[in-house]
Amino acid sequence: MTDLTIRPATEDDLPAIVAMLADDPLGATRESLEDLTPYRDALQRMAKDPHQRVVVAVRDDRVVGTLQLTLIPGLSRKGATRALVEGVRVHADERGSGLGTLFMEWAIEESRRENCALIQLTSDASRTEAHRFYERLGFTASHVGFKLQL
Amino acid sequence: MTDLTIRPATEDDLPAIVAMLADDPLGATRESLEDLTPYRDALQRMAKDPHQRVVVAVRDDRVVGTLQLTLIPGLSRKGATRALVEGVRVHADERGSGLGTLFMEWAIEESRRENCALIQLTSDASRTEAHRFYERLGFTASHVGFKLQL
Repeated sequence: MTDLTIRPATEDDLPAIVAMLADDPLGATRESLEDLTPYRDALQRMAKDPHQRVVVAVRDDRVVGTLQLTLIPGLSRKGATRALVEGVRVHADERGSGLGTLFMEWAIEESRRENCALIQLTSDASRTEAHRFYERLGFTASHVGFKLQL
Repeated sequence: MTDLTIRPATEDDLPAIVAMLADDPLGATRESLEDLTPYRDALQRMAKDPHQRVVVAVRDDRVVGTLQLTLIPGLSRKGATRALVEGVRVHADERGSGLGTLFMEWAIEESRRENCALIQLTSDASRTEAHRFYERLGFTASHVGFKLQL
């Protein structure tokens, strides 16, 4: 296999990104490949926000993964900034290829570069394999993640 | 008891906010009341960021709680924005006063006003009483929260 590259997402990547977002049982009901306008609007808003990093992983000119990193300033820990990982998707063809590890290494490195005191994420309680993956990377499953649909 | 008010935090609130951040076993080792400069710098950065809301709860001109709400744009769910609650602190004198509920109602209302599709937070796994509180407010404990100190 050829090398993977991680780079900022552009509007041209949106069809591939949305296809990955839709490619799971939950995503299939929540996403729409027919009209990319709301995705384009969101990407434009994020591009103007210095606290947002939306990246894609590319292999052979093909988008095979996406990840969002948000830098969150705060008061606690002497005004520390934290990093939040959301929206991680890896193309079905790439599972087991090491892309998940590459993504998280990128996210950790970028967070360190931005002087973040910690990096955090939540993972669905049912995904025990993903939990072992994050623990191998040094993460601690110290918290319960609560969500409320509005 | 007189009424509680929730309003944006200002620099004058920092001594009271930092005292609350430091008033727990973890916070005591991580915070510094002697030099407020890093907190002031962080609050100034947050004031310039349209995605940040740092508020305080005030009773009788006294700051008795603080909460941070972050609005996070994203691509998933058709470009939905989510809200993240961090840095909730309630003064020891106010526990059981209903301030926690008032804070979360404010956070949910503000998130709805900003058209967020969901609101989320993480809570330390040991805080089972807090978990029941969030569940009573309608939150689902669907995720595991992972953190890595950098």
